[in-house]
Amino acid sequence: MTPVTAGSDKSLRELFIEAATEAIEDAGVDKLDSMYVGNMMSGYLQKQEHLGALMATAIGRQGIPTYKVEGACASGGVATNAGVKAVLSGLESIVLVGAVEKMSGYTTPQVTEGLMMAEDRSKVAATGISFVGLNAMIAREYMHRYKVKSDDLAEFPVLCHENALANPRAQFHKRISVDDVLRSPLVADPLRLFDCSAIGDGAAAIVLVPLDKARKFTDSPVEITSSAVATDTLSLYQRPDITTFEASRKAATHAFGVAHIKPDDVDVLEVHDAFSVLGIMALEDLGFERKGSGVQLLKEGVCTREGHLPTNTFGGLKARGHPVGASGAYQIAELALQLSNRADKCQVPNAETGVAQSIGGIGATVAVHVLKRVA
Amino acid sequence: MTPVTAGSDKSLRELFIEAATEAIEDAGVDKLDSMYVGNMMSGYLQKQEHLGALMATAIGRQGIPTYKVEGACASGGVATNAGVKAVLSGLESIVLVGAVEKMSGYTTPQVTEGLMMAEDRSKVAATGISFVGLNAMIAREYMHRYKVKSDDLAEFPVLCHENALANPRAQFHKRISVDDVLRSPLVADPLRLFDCSAIGDGAAAIVLVPLDKARKFTDSPVEITSSAVATDTLSLYQRPDITTFEASRKAATHAFGVAHIKPDDVDVLEVHDAFSVLGIMALEDLGFERKGSGVQLLKEGVCTREGHLPTNTFGGLKARGHPVGASGAYQIAELALQLSNRADKCQVPNAETGVAQSIGGIGATVAVHVLKRVA
Repeated sequence: MTPVTAGSDKSLRELFIEAATEAIEDAGVDKLDSMYVGNMMSGYLQKQEHLGALMATAIGRQGIPTYKVEGACASGGVATNAGVKAVLSGLESIVLVGAVEKMSGYTTPQVTEGLMMAEDRSKVAATGISFVGLNAMIAREYMHRYKVKSDDLAEFPVLCHENALANPRAQFHKRISVDDVLRSPLVADPLRLFDCSAIGDGAAAIVLVPLDKARKFTDSPVEITSSAVATDTLSLYQRPDITTFEASRKAATHAFGVAHIKPDDVDVLEVHDAFSVLGIMALEDLGFERKGSGVQLLKEGVCTREGHLPTNTFGGLKARGHPVGASGAYQIAELALQLSNRADKCQVPNAETGVAQSIGGIGATVAVHVLKRVA
Repeated sequence: MTPVTAGSDKSLRELFIEAATEAIEDAGVDKLDSMYVGNMMSGYLQKQEHLGALMATAIGRQGIPTYKVEGACASGGVATNAGVKAVLSGLESIVLVGAVEKMSGYTTPQVTEGLMMAEDRSKVAATGISFVGLNAMIAREYMHRYKVKSDDLAEFPVLCHENALANPRAQFHKRISVDDVLRSPLVADPLRLFDCSAIGDGAAAIVLVPLDKARKFTDSPVEITSSAVATDTLSLYQRPDITTFEASRKAATHAFGVAHIKPDDVDVLEVHDAFSVLGIMALEDLGFERKGSGVQLLKEGVCTREGHLPTNTFGGLKARGHPVGASGAYQIAELALQLSNRADKCQVPNAETGVAQSIGGIGATVAVHVLKRVA
């Protein structure tokens, strides 16, 4: 994982090279059978597609089978899913999944328009609403229906900023309080600046091999026990209830089922908190708390690194950073470090089972992965 | 497959709906386990990403796992590869692969810049050269090295236009002669207008199931016997020889090997003739003729529908049309019709084995598929 920054002097490909090289060296693999590149916005922002061949060339691996996989902000999550299927297909044994996004260096209108590529351009973006605006509507409805207040939502970014203090690669190293969140500028009512993840540049990569080969490369292998992708209607206006993401519920039910785990079995959790309300909704949609009560887990300290359900242990999207198409791969890499007991100051004790949830668009695509330490 | 046209009044999603609906109805499947959407330029031209969830919603299948797969002009080919891996993974049984591109309705500079996203923006596009210009350099070098003339190259578009006369979905229904090609306007010396595929809108879709389930849906199943993707350096300037595409050779060697076939076994061939010279190079790179002599196959009539190696039997990229990210899926759909004896006036007699080659960028990504009629 590269550090996440806004205004990296590294290009899209330099970010990718850094993460891919680190992953390949860490895994100790020589040859790669294939590579899957997760990215959302390169066509729009960098006017560059064909990232498969481009990145393979950049890391000196031209020749290998590779292509780009895109699922909006869940691109890193769905690229991991593509990598898992490649290994399970039996066609490829040593697979690199790398995901990258470079969002800085562009104007705010450019990035704002770029993010709206995740929603329906012809019917929704045409109204002039922004991506933050759509999430603000969710927050407003959620707060109204469940009698939740802004200072409740603020618990999520406070947790993430606290956790990021221990992560040298995090975008923000700044402890914040609920009051700091409430005093930060309004972006789209009721969401304030500190309710929102920031623009960031970054790349993350992981190496996948069949489980029976993993011991050749490491003494502490981590298994991807299940990889599930689910979708919903592309647009919010098409949903009967905007305070829950059906795609999260569906992907989690499937992934938990395949992995034979219940929510109580999860030792470390990474959720897609692009906005504070999404972090809290994730705790509910993944089955850790009943609808409308997710914030209780935060108030009771359950989600801290010392709690029963350590959540966003490297800082999450809010504080580790959210280079959109890369974030899903950061989550997988962070869980791999946790489950192999290599998370340094971010380490959760005795983590054996981890879950990552990555969201594309307004809950329209969700990837859920269950990872386990291999005994 | 939708008809290919320049200036379709259908939107990107309407094109996809048409092809996907036809494929689903033709296959007689009710439920889909997943969908892979091939597309190259939607982020740049339509300012729309997240085509997985968007298209699933558009065809009333929201909920299914789906994402976009991109490999420049080979996007339809690599999306098919992703679908094959999904089925082989055992995770998904009924998989739709759909690929779509809408290129019309934009200015020539916009489409020209969009196509250059397949090459290296920072190092190559920055020089001002266009995608056609790069292919013209290949043509010039090829002609020089192998003593091939413009009227030799012209044999390829002449063949494609002849074949397209029998394809009601083709973009062009116009017989052309070598002289017509030679008299058409220069685009990038030595390539003339009729050496080049045109801007087009279109979508194609196929349904994949495990072979042992195929008989449930059809009496004439077609097997994807092998699916190979290979890459090369992204850019032409990084190659020792620009008159051959190493990625074509590599993908073909792999795909032919897995399928246990030799070039002589191929009954019908679809190659990526975005420019006349590429069609001829493909005949050589795939092993049907020695380097520099590909045009002999055309002159001897080998590639006609009545010859030993019927090639681009529906008109190829030149005359069926080349909606870039969709063309690779058109090839697979056309081979499926040929091998199930449903190609109507395009039918090649007794075709049992077919090969499709789809190129992304300047030979930087190549997908080769071998398909066989199931006895």
